[in-house]
Amino acid sequence: MKAVIFDIDDTLFDSATLAKMARINAVKAMVESGLPLKSIARGYKLLMRIVEKYGSNYNQHFDKVLEELGCEWNPKIIAAGVVAYHDTKQAYLKPEPEVIPTLITLRDRGYKLGIVSNGKAVKQWEKLIRLGLHHFFHAVVISEEVGSEKPDVEIFRITLKKLEVKPQEAIYVGDHLETDILGANKVGMISVRIVREKRKKQSYKDKITPRFSIKRISDLLKFL
Amino acid sequence: MKAVIFDIDDTLFDSATLAKMARINAVKAMVESGLPLKSIARGYKLLMRIVEKYGSNYNQHFDKVLEELGCEWNPKIIAAGVVAYHDTKQAYLKPEPEVIPTLITLRDRGYKLGIVSNGKAVKQWEKLIRLGLHHFFHAVVISEEVGSEKPDVEIFRITLKKLEVKPQEAIYVGDHLETDILGANKVGMISVRIVREKRKKQSYKDKITPRFSIKRISDLLKFL
Repeated sequence: MKAVIFDIDDTLFDSATLAKMARINAVKAMVESGLPLKSIARGYKLLMRIVEKYGSNYNQHFDKVLEELGCEWNPKIIAAGVVAYHDTKQAYLKPEPEVIPTLITLRDRGYKLGIVSNGKAVKQWEKLIRLGLHHFFHAVVISEEVGSEKPDVEIFRITLKKLEVKPQEAIYVGDHLETDILGANKVGMISVRIVREKRKKQSYKDKITPRFSIKRISDLLKFL
Repeated sequence: MKAVIFDIDDTLFDSATLAKMARINAVKAMVESGLPLKSIARGYKLLMRIVEKYGSNYNQHFDKVLEELGCEWNPKIIAAGVVAYHDTKQAYLKPEPEVIPTLITLRDRGYKLGIVSNGKAVKQWEKLIRLGLHHFFHAVVISEEVGSEKPDVEIFRITLKKLEVKPQEAIYVGDHLETDILGANKVGMISVRIVREKRKKQSYKDKITPRFSIKRISDLLKFL
């Protein structure tokens, strides 16, 4: 093995909890500022429906919440949601336990480190910077930049080429079967799935099987 | 007197220092991430030229910095600038000394409090929320929402109507002669200009004269 390549969201930090807490706190702040809702849970459900309908990179989710509730556009309520969302996001944008010491040890042992991530390039880089991880990687490849996204093999091939390693010399670590594990398997890398307690319920459809399964990032050090 | 109405930027917080420091820190972070510039000062000048050319609400200033330097689009450098800019902004988004105790005392004395501000409504509300001032005001009027901006009299009249006071019963506090003082004078309010040390050099063109000039917000309490 010569290289270890990582997914970002829900692999290096707990993206699912971040998104959930940021949205709940946004709804709470909007209600405090006058959004006519008696239940935070109902507001959260409504927001989730809007996020699913318009996508997570759409930037008018809170305007749509007002619209769906038949309210007039209200900049105070929207701003309250935006501030609470961003403050919560920043509070939760921390690496999972053991991520930093594991990356340091992998570098000490001479491995090349990489990132393969789907998403907007500036947004994903912002995450790496806020996580304090931006200096660790020899190559960072984001789908927007290369016009190919996981599980396509192309985005993995581009990264392997940048790191100057062959697929069979590289490990790919991610949480999603349908993107991370499927893609890594297709290109011929060693796929490692990280399954933390709370994400046990992810569907095992399509019989996509990772080569290894780990519970925490530091488990990588056991076989590297 | 029945009401005291305030401008936001450079009246309730030090917007000029915030913008300057946020931009300097953004340039520093971009240089650290690979922007090919030897001098931070040169980068700051370039950024200021771009801000002036495209306006401060344009959201691709850092992309333009790369473009002007003949560099390829680089999401790492842009994200480094964005993160440093926002972190600095948050650090400096604090009320000027004495603003909060002065607002509390004015309310204790029975004055209605208001805001008249030029700008994007959500953005200006975000500032009030981050400053912790959003609960103090009986009326907040932002130009984008009402389709009129200082020095037009209309935006002042809308606010006076919301507060149910006549122009001669209200004080307007701001820093800019050409928008704040001119507008307040035109509508017949008592204009008060706040001139802190560092802003002495603002041009006194057009002979716009405030009714009173103060050095700090708490000076208001001397004549109210």
